[in-house]
Amino acid sequence: MRCSAALLQRLPAGMARPGLPGPPARAGFPVAATDTPALLLDLAALERNCARIKAALGPFPHVALRPHAKAHKSSAVAAMTLELTGARGVCCQKLCEAEAMVDGGINDILLSNEIISQSKIERLCQLAARPGVKLAVLVDDAGNVSDLAREAARANIQLEVLVEVDVGQNRCGVAPGPATAALASAIVSHSPALRFGGLQCYHGLTQHIRSVAERRAAILGPVLAATKASIAACEAAGVWSPDLRVTGGGTGTFIFEAETGVFNEVQAGSFVLMDTDYTDNDAEDKVKFEPVLHCLATVMSRPLPERAVLDAGTKALDLGCGPPRFVGTKPGTATYRSGGDEHGIIDLSGAAVESDMFKVGSVVWVQPSHCDPTVNLHDWFVLHRDGIVQDCVPIEARGPGR
Amino acid sequence: MRCSAALLQRLPAGMARPGLPGPPARAGFPVAATDTPALLLDLAALERNCARIKAALGPFPHVALRPHAKAHKSSAVAAMTLELTGARGVCCQKLCEAEAMVDGGINDILLSNEIISQSKIERLCQLAARPGVKLAVLVDDAGNVSDLAREAARANIQLEVLVEVDVGQNRCGVAPGPATAALASAIVSHSPALRFGGLQCYHGLTQHIRSVAERRAAILGPVLAATKASIAACEAAGVWSPDLRVTGGGTGTFIFEAETGVFNEVQAGSFVLMDTDYTDNDAEDKVKFEPVLHCLATVMSRPLPERAVLDAGTKALDLGCGPPRFVGTKPGTATYRSGGDEHGIIDLSGAAVESDMFKVGSVVWVQPSHCDPTVNLHDWFVLHRDGIVQDCVPIEARGPGR
Repeated sequence: MRCSAALLQRLPAGMARPGLPGPPARAGFPVAATDTPALLLDLAALERNCARIKAALGPFPHVALRPHAKAHKSSAVAAMTLELTGARGVCCQKLCEAEAMVDGGINDILLSNEIISQSKIERLCQLAARPGVKLAVLVDDAGNVSDLAREAARANIQLEVLVEVDVGQNRCGVAPGPATAALASAIVSHSPALRFGGLQCYHGLTQHIRSVAERRAAILGPVLAATKASIAACEAAGVWSPDLRVTGGGTGTFIFEAETGVFNEVQAGSFVLMDTDYTDNDAEDKVKFEPVLHCLATVMSRPLPERAVLDAGTKALDLGCGPPRFVGTKPGTATYRSGGDEHGIIDLSGAAVESDMFKVGSVVWVQPSHCDPTVNLHDWFVLHRDGIVQDCVPIEARGPGR
Repeated sequence: MRCSAALLQRLPAGMARPGLPGPPARAGFPVAATDTPALLLDLAALERNCARIKAALGPFPHVALRPHAKAHKSSAVAAMTLELTGARGVCCQKLCEAEAMVDGGINDILLSNEIISQSKIERLCQLAARPGVKLAVLVDDAGNVSDLAREAARANIQLEVLVEVDVGQNRCGVAPGPATAALASAIVSHSPALRFGGLQCYHGLTQHIRSVAERRAAILGPVLAATKASIAACEAAGVWSPDLRVTGGGTGTFIFEAETGVFNEVQAGSFVLMDTDYTDNDAEDKVKFEPVLHCLATVMSRPLPERAVLDAGTKALDLGCGPPRFVGTKPGTATYRSGGDEHGIIDLSGAAVESDMFKVGSVVWVQPSHCDPTVNLHDWFVLHRDGIVQDCVPIEARGPGR
């Protein structure tokens, strides 16, 4: 299934901030004519990935997909994803992302993070008060619950609030079980300003366990046990009902959360773009996704046969999950190493055959190792199909995340 | 010496792109009221760093300072730096940075990098043709020399071109000696479209050698030898004259390049902002600089006494040079570890005393480990003095670098 022409025509208008640097490509031109470094988004591959996740979740009609928008930070990409998967809303990780989504026409949002500070809580309530917006937020602190209740009452809204449970990631979240129920009760005690919406039980560190069996065991073991204990504690405290949300799961594990029968929402988002860190996971065929995102770069120097230099360094490609890879090369023949902030060095010592790919001026397709922080370096996606640029859409929520 | 009031008043007007996200702070408010995550720039510390480098270069009147703008990417910060140091121009690493500098009123630019591809070379020549602009660029490839000459002739300008010499970094650049002279001769052969401007002999990897003696030895040994061999080869080829530029050096080594008597320009730029990677260098007092740049972050979760979570992850702080540090804590008491793209985890297991600093809602001053890629994640600098926000100035050239 392809993105509808109606949607594609609607995308750029009204979404580009006038002060962004200009887009790196023009519709109708070959991809290779794109100014570099630039992020490319393969529309056909995106459509196939969306069809795959929809099919994979087909046997679990009680599980809603709520694709995370933090990976792409673009309301245009969110709109395509919702149209193609049938999902009704997205997750965001930062308030500015949620604002960008609403500005871009995406009105159903789970802000899967805590919102702290008076000014942000005011913005949160203003956003939730906008017509047609359905917004929920997480908490893990009783003081924050009181702050949210005070501002929601002042804004004359009812804010949906979920408890973040630490199911093993050791980051934010309250302990599973009684502590979770206590915070849920605190939310309930602030009705009608707040409405208890359920539990987030997401474990990010499990997403990149390479083996399918170990990844499944991590979810069906400790994560599920912590989730069930938290629900049971909420039931004992009299604050649970079966229509509440139990949300979690990412691209690496969502199918296991779906299998539990306990989770009723999954947050996978990286499947839309993919990166080498996710393609390196072993995965069953039904949840195998293909690369959608590439960084187009130009060979700017070829000082030696065994060394080429790209115009894409750590300001264009995040290296936190290891080096990116080159499309069209065999493993081990051309390897990326950091050349600093503005340069990428390609070691070609094992690449007799591919050497001609890397002449001065050649453009090179690079598959990022980690999509989120790489996207966050760029202002535009170049949408392409059959080698031709279809459109450029802005990454409106790019930035440090306020 | 302080930045002049006239300059500070002139800064924001005309420099902010209208479509940037709004600034995170307002002039006249306390720094602690800044929306987070945000980059803070300590004006008094910047002024002291500028005074220090000016004093350090005092004994070398034949050596011009050309502070690199790639670290801050802001014409406002460049303007302050030039006013305070007396430097006449800046270095840029990307064409979009050079364009932003010219748009912001900085007209004397060394683009210390190769510019490849037809569209970029056209933009380069358009920029060089703008009234009052003095622009030079590097080459390391004969084909690129021909491309530059063709477009410079078409634009009816004379473009200044320097040869990048690989003095040991193993990135871009031609080999020292005869290869350098051959490329210089190629430039000369394209007169009047091109004018040979001299040699860039920069060695980035030497900047962070920790010991003063080893850092000095790296410059006065191999770097100087390669530089001298290249000049000698150019002399032998009849293309050298004493007024040509020999440029290089960064914040870690510029004083050694200055001492050589061979370099007549140094490119140090990180001294303006500083980061822990540079403060960890041993340095003589005269070239010791202090932290100017901080990231203000908010504690968004405090699930355990020994763990706090900040709203600044790898989308707000680059971790490529290790974890950032916290102002106001003793070494080892509060350590940063990655909590992913949007979270920073503070391990407080050794921090009984500082524990109160990290309550939910507290703001925390973080010193980045690497200034360049951290700045590149943000859109604004918050300028402050005596605890009060003075202004916000845009980081106009932020981005992947086209």
